[in-house]
Amino acid sequence: MTLEELARRVGGEVVGDGSVVLSGVSGIREAQAGHLTFLSNPKYERYLSTTNASAIVVDSECRAVAAESGKPLLVTDNAHYAFAKAMALFGPAGERLAKGVHPTAVVSESARIGADVSLGPHVVIMDGARIGDRVVLHAGVYVGPRVTIGRDTVVHSHVTIESESEIGDRVVIHAGTVVGSDGFGFAWDGEAHAKVPQIGNVVIEDDVEIGSNVAIDRATVGTTRIGRGTKIDNLVHIGHNVTIGENSMIVAQVGISGSTEVGKGVVLGGQAGVVGHIEIGDGAMVGAQAGVTRSVPAGERVSGYPARRHSLSKRLHACLMRLPLLFRRVKELERRIARLEKGE
Amino acid sequence: MTLEELARRVGGEVVGDGSVVLSGVSGIREAQAGHLTFLSNPKYERYLSTTNASAIVVDSECRAVAAESGKPLLVTDNAHYAFAKAMALFGPAGERLAKGVHPTAVVSESARIGADVSLGPHVVIMDGARIGDRVVLHAGVYVGPRVTIGRDTVVHSHVTIESESEIGDRVVIHAGTVVGSDGFGFAWDGEAHAKVPQIGNVVIEDDVEIGSNVAIDRATVGTTRIGRGTKIDNLVHIGHNVTIGENSMIVAQVGISGSTEVGKGVVLGGQAGVVGHIEIGDGAMVGAQAGVTRSVPAGERVSGYPARRHSLSKRLHACLMRLPLLFRRVKELERRIARLEKGE
Amino acid sequence: MTLEELARRVGGEVVGDGSVVLSGVSGIREAQAGHLTFLSNPKYERYLSTTNASAIVVDSECRAVAAESGKPLLVTDNAHYAFAKAMALFGPAGERLAKGVHPTAVVSESARIGADVSLGPHVVIMDGARIGDRVVLHAGVYVGPRVTIGRDTVVHSHVTIESESEIGDRVVIHAGTVVGSDGFGFAWDGEAHAKVPQIGNVVIEDDVEIGSNVAIDRATVGTTRIGRGTKIDNLVHIGHNVTIGENSMIVAQVGISGSTEVGKGVVLGGQAGVVGHIEIGDGAMVGAQAGVTRSVPAGERVSGYPARRHSLSKRLHACLMRLPLLFRRVKELERRIARLEKGE
Repeated sequence: MTLEELARRVGGEVVGDGSVVLSGVSGIREAQAGHLTFLSNPKYERYLSTTNASAIVVDSECRAVAAESGKPLLVTDNAHYAFAKAMALFGPAGERLAKGVHPTAVVSESARIGADVSLGPHVVIMDGARIGDRVVLHAGVYVGPRVTIGRDTVVHSHVTIESESEIGDRVVIHAGTVVGSDGFGFAWDGEAHAKVPQIGNVVIEDDVEIGSNVAIDRATVGTTRIGRGTKIDNLVHIGHNVTIGENSMIVAQVGISGSTEVGKGVVLGGQAGVVGHIEIGDGAMVGAQAGVTRSVPAGERVSGYPARRHSLSKRLHACLMRLPLLFRRVKELERRIARLEKGE
Repeated sequence: MTLEELARRVGGEVVGDGSVVLSGVSGIREAQAGHLTFLSNPKYERYLSTTNASAIVVDSECRAVAAESGKPLLVTDNAHYAFAKAMALFGPAGERLAKGVHPTAVVSESARIGADVSLGPHVVIMDGARIGDRVVLHAGVYVGPRVTIGRDTVVHSHVTIESESEIGDRVVIHAGTVVGSDGFGFAWDGEAHAKVPQIGNVVIEDDVEIGSNVAIDRATVGTTRIGRGTKIDNLVHIGHNVTIGENSMIVAQVGISGSTEVGKGVVLGGQAGVVGHIEIGDGAMVGAQAGVTRSVPAGERVSGYPARRHSLSKRLHACLMRLPLLFRRVKELERRIARLEKGE
Repeated sequence: MTLEELARRVGGEVVGDGSVVLSGVSGIREAQAGHLTFLSNPKYERYLSTTNASAIVVDSECRAVAAESGKPLLVTDNAHYAFAKAMALFGPAGERLAKGVHPTAVVSESARIGADVSLGPHVVIMDGARIGDRVVLHAGVYVGPRVTIGRDTVVHSHVTIESESEIGDRVVIHAGTVVGSDGFGFAWDGEAHAKVPQIGNVVIEDDVEIGSNVAIDRATVGTTRIGRGTKIDNLVHIGHNVTIGENSMIVAQVGISGSTEVGKGVVLGGQAGVVGHIEIGDGAMVGAQAGVTRSVPAGERVSGYPARRHSLSKRLHACLMRLPLLFRRVKELERRIARLEKGE
């Protein structure tokens, strides 16, 4: 494929030789002759002069600096997205599992299985489950009783989907993740922590992607819900009765405690923790490692522990850094005032 | 079941119409006609006027405010616990696995299996393991050599229990959890990190519950021990040779480093981290995200990083919030003192 | 084995009765008659007078205090390492899996399997995979298409190794870990988060050990690489395109975001978080729970959030602890200056 042809398929303007032939994609450091690469993070501009790539997808604001490299460019408004589309043209991503049901899979007679599914070795599907068309369940996936899975959903190895969970269409769940385990609910009976039965379920809406070794608890009663298009990274904990709106981003190792409501388009940075029973408004951004102890209004950006407006966190941090100096200034004041008091 | 009948079985005082018929339980927001719900967190009082529930379990201190709703009430000293008991009356929680050994399970001839067990598809039980009566092992559970599991214990899918682990009676382990993996022990030999063999084991006492995707390491030598009745949430890390006393609560994503001793009735808040080789006294409470670097006396409440008494943490935080103001006050003092020095 | 014989095999100087017979190893608190134990952490000196151990491996600097116990000693420059070697002499650590391929394993005809391997129950090996000599794959391990695994590597139950991953010689991977899941890459297309295909792979070099329930993402393009001899603890997250040098130590629950380069001999403390696209220089040490937001020079020690030089963090912390006092000092100054201004 030439750069010219690529531009026709993913959009953008060719700058330089559009007839260059491209055979693959790679990062700007690893790229070899024939490769397409991309530049959207200014940190990587320094590699422009040394990359072996044959063409570069760049954001329009990087156009001038990229042009100096003399490489053919594809200039777009969204280099990251254009590159993603280009990658998909350069061959398959991920593994294709053979159609059909592997002979070692254990499928309940009362389960309903759609057309053109791929059920890998040692998959287990329990009573009353319903699996949509073209679903791919990799080796060892466990689908509990009365679970429903929509169409075109892909579930990777060793995922556990507990009973009554409802998984939408085009969902991706990576290996080792657990959906629908019991919430952490106990009531002290005077002598021991008595278990509060967890009889609710989990609903994962369409187009959600969930990383590896995530844990999403079923509701005590009602539903723990992950909204359409939301993306969840690895090792995230989502407590019982949490709800997350559409198109939110939950970065790795975040923990969200029970009954908290996260809005649409929210970003929770890596390792952030959110207490239970609060609301994170639409479009809010929570910094990495923040500890959110109170509700966050829509659109607000918070950080730190306990989390507060990011601008305030930055101001407090600046003050903290100057604190040793402040101690010296106060000591100096004490010296000067003592002199004045002595009438010197 | 009427509210009157329910009160006889779970205790508490009926206020209002005790003849109302209840068909299920749910949260105060989701409840429909015929449902029992509960109120113990004041945050949810605002839903009293709009809930469709037919009856409400309330703590005695919420009695007055709840009575205004006009709904039939069940007033108790511990609404959370009473509701938990009520839930158990309204039908099964969790999945019932068929008794017997699934034909795809692989059970060593030298393993001893109790009466009335349920071993799901693809369960693996290695040499010398002993499984108690009425144990339920869901699909794909791995039980290593010489592991013992007590009676009435339930282990969910894809759990790994490594060799020599001892699991008590009525224990619950959720999906994906690993018990008895090697501790993180290495000794620098001048050129590389040499592995320190991890030849101890893990003991999980009776009535412990462990969440999903937890990791509990075996002892280097001796035993990593989780005390009777302790509850562990999802994605928790417990290092080698850690001991935890009875009835403690370890919230999601906590990490406890090697050889630390946690007492009885301790609460470790979500994402808290505890260094190795220290002691957390009985009844201590560690705040969410706290970083505990020194031993904590019994009954003490600590928070922050590094963790200190919670009252001190709060005072320091209050000071920190007023720090920008303090800078302004010092600047003003400097101005005033300069004037005095000039004799103005 | 006598203490004398042990000294010949692991090195060190015998102090006291070298003819004492040793039958096992254990911790200083749990040791019984006949056991060898060790002392390298001064915190445990208090157990010297009460331990039932028959001999003690000690660091040379502990020689004097240990000699007071009257116990036979093995004095070495590195007690931890000597004890590790002694443990290996006292019998097998970990489980020995029978050689051969378990009849329930599913092995692709196009996979190439080395000599003397042990493939446990329900192991799955997909098309084009290559497994080296003497590799041990415990029950339920999943090896994706075109994965390569070197010689003498041990992989524990329920590990998922996704397609194209390359695992070296003598690697150990503990249960539940996922290698090669998709990185967290999405590009906003104006309406939704479009998936960026993740077409790179993961390379785990020789002698790496990885804990339980870890998640290591494949590169977007190129390779996520873990350097030779590096050790990774439980529940660690490693993002796409991260590289880690040789002999680094990544403690439990650390998270490293995409494209960050970690050097050789680096230590990342428990629960530390590292943002993407930065460099952690060789030999750097990052404190537990630190939040690293900028590159760290080689050899530097950082801590806190945001992470800064550890010496500065300690100074800031000391200032913070004296902050209530500073407020009082400023108040006192204000009082005194007011008096001066009034001409008192």
